[in-house]
Amino acid sequence: MTRPVEVVAFDADDTLWHSESLFAVTQERVAELLAPYADAATLEAELLTTERRNLDVYGYGVKGFTLSMVETALAVSDGRVTTDEVATILGWGKQLLAHPVELLDGVEETLRVVAADHRIALVTKGDLFHQESKIAESGLGELFEHVAVVAEKDTATYARFAGQLGVAPAGLLMVGNSVRSDVLPVLEIGGRAVHVPYNVTWAHEHAEVPADATGNGAYTQLTTLRELPAHLADLAP
Amino acid sequence: MTRPVEVVAFDADDTLWHSESLFAVTQERVAELLAPYADAATLEAELLTTERRNLDVYGYGVKGFTLSMVETALAVSDGRVTTDEVATILGWGKQLLAHPVELLDGVEETLRVVAADHRIALVTKGDLFHQESKIAESGLGELFEHVAVVAEKDTATYARFAGQLGVAPAGLLMVGNSVRSDVLPVLEIGGRAVHVPYNVTWAHEHAEVPADATGNGAYTQLTTLRELPAHLADLAP
Repeated sequence: MTRPVEVVAFDADDTLWHSESLFAVTQERVAELLAPYADAATLEAELLTTERRNLDVYGYGVKGFTLSMVETALAVSDGRVTTDEVATILGWGKQLLAHPVELLDGVEETLRVVAADHRIALVTKGDLFHQESKIAESGLGELFEHVAVVAEKDTATYARFAGQLGVAPAGLLMVGNSVRSDVLPVLEIGGRAVHVPYNVTWAHEHAEVPADATGNGAYTQLTTLRELPAHLADLAP
Repeated sequence: MTRPVEVVAFDADDTLWHSESLFAVTQERVAELLAPYADAATLEAELLTTERRNLDVYGYGVKGFTLSMVETALAVSDGRVTTDEVATILGWGKQLLAHPVELLDGVEETLRVVAADHRIALVTKGDLFHQESKIAESGLGELFEHVAVVAEKDTATYARFAGQLGVAPAGLLMVGNSVRSDVLPVLEIGGRAVHVPYNVTWAHEHAEVPADATGNGAYTQLTTLRELPAHLADLAP
């Protein structure tokens, strides 16, 4: 692949700022709250099943997570969960939505360095209102030429996204923490991807990178976003 | 105002398809369900207060509405609501999200007529995932040059929307059922607006059109979308 990288697109949750760790903490608190009704492993399995079943109607994001937590609490307790406990879960959902944005290490400096030589953009899924609030709060919004909040990150989404930016897929490099959402569909349309794993991955986002994608420079894994400028320099023709 | 209308933008919920009437039906069912704990008027007032208080964290849409219904049920029943009743409310929220799209009278024909002489676009607020599902299901998506799902419909949103379309505000005409969201901010940035009232308006969306907006051709009210092509013909220079 010799076409230069023109647009570097970034995922937001768990790539620019913490997110999944906050969900995980909330889930632990719910497991503790509901310990009288179910052990933690049962609760975790039931919550994941409920979330996945509800993805078709709720999509991604904290509001759907909160609704799925309430539904799970009703189910695992066989209706014995108290209204106070339901109210507590609703409150934790609101806390997640109102939680301050905590940038990951080196994010702002890296974005500025990359933006000096590339067009940069942001593409994220989740609740529109919540994502826009976090982008505004992060103070990073102005750095991006284009910000897209999308319902699903599949090949159609990335093709549309590249079209909006007027860039061929081969000129697009996507950076994110999810192999399933940030890497595979981008490789599939002929773009490049950088995987920067986060310390927690939602089970639904687990996926493997096909072996044939790792040798041709289209895909690499980095330990931290700070390594991105050097990787882009390596890719430059 | 002599600049011709270049882009006609449409609201979606209650302008192209039924929405608020479905919320209203759900709200009536919840009032019936919770009748043992509160009379309908109390419930309605409490639900509106809860929804408004939660707008800052939930934004618009069915998921926030469902969460606010559960919160209201816990509050008005003083915690006496049963878990079965909470589960019933969750189920009604899902029914709202999965409800088939029912176009309003004359929508498709009108869009085709208007699109023959104008660029047309769609701008709607609510849950991103739900709005995109409804647009896809409506079969109307391909008619629009641009579709924007936004977190709030204020002057900044409409200015950005016009910018994305490359049209000056004076060349933009917005059509929708909400004076607050579809009319006032568009008039404020110098665009034109057409108000087509729906038979139900959410209390939060109530607003008055200022008297000085009604004389200069920037604003009009129509009874049905079917009257739009004739109105556009009147506006043509």
